[in-house]
Amino acid sequence: MLKPGDRFEKTFSFTQEQVNQFAELSGDKNPIHLDAEYAANTSFGRRIVHGILTISIFSQLIGMEFPGAGTIYLGQDIDFKRPVFPDEEYKVILEVAEVLEGKHIASIKTQIYDANNKIAVDGFSRVKNKEKIA
Amino acid sequence: MLKPGDRFEKTFSFTQEQVNQFAELSGDKNPIHLDAEYAANTSFGRRIVHGILTISIFSQLIGMEFPGAGTIYLGQDIDFKRPVFPDEEYKVILEVAEVLEGKHIASIKTQIYDANNKIAVDGFSRVKNKEKIA
Repeated sequence: MLKPGDRFEKTFSFTQEQVNQFAELSGDKNPIHLDAEYAANTSFGRRIVHGILTISIFSQLIGMEFPGAGTIYLGQDIDFKRPVFPDEEYKVILEVAEVLEGKHIASIKTQIYDANNKIAVDGFSRVKNKEKIA
Repeated sequence: MLKPGDRFEKTFSFTQEQVNQFAELSGDKNPIHLDAEYAANTSFGRRIVHGILTISIFSQLIGMEFPGAGTIYLGQDIDFKRPVFPDEEYKVILEVAEVLEGKHIASIKTQIYDANNKIAVDGFSRVKNKEKIA
């Protein structure tokens, strides 16, 4: 059973090709994600990964690894603090913050750090899993 | 300039094919999204759209239509209240809740309703746009 303080971490990156595919799939064709010339003239200086594609790493890990199979996603709060760039390495850290015992519900701190250990994405997931949360 | 109460709404749906593509792209292969037989034995009774794919409708509309081009996504809070099923029609409603004047930042209520007008997804986006938010 998951308990407060339990942690999971993993490095990951998104490629520009994945960003292009997500733009097609979601219809979010904001040029900040797709157009290198446009992005060069913004405060970011280059193309950035869609925020929603970025946080799909939370959903993937929650559904597949921590807590894993059978998890129902109840909610997610997110602050996008710094841009996430394609083809750079990031670290995702999930840590159980609270368990609502008897309800099989946990609040999991969800964070993404860049290679300089600066936080890029901060937030919490709320998840339910009858087999892995007390 | 956007002001509190300004609204945008649109009907949309996601296909099972989009769900399959998002599973490949994100690596989130939770069988609740992909395996009809598995899903039939859960409380949902059938396959559901990934929560993160569902909320990509917010990111798409925020980046492309309301407020539109140039918008920076600062944050998103979400409650997944009811499942979203593939190949069914839903309505997304965006409504400006608050404008932080001089900061070009708005809080936008983000909601998705099903065909029976029951809320499926509730939450808020925080966005910045120098040209469209005072």
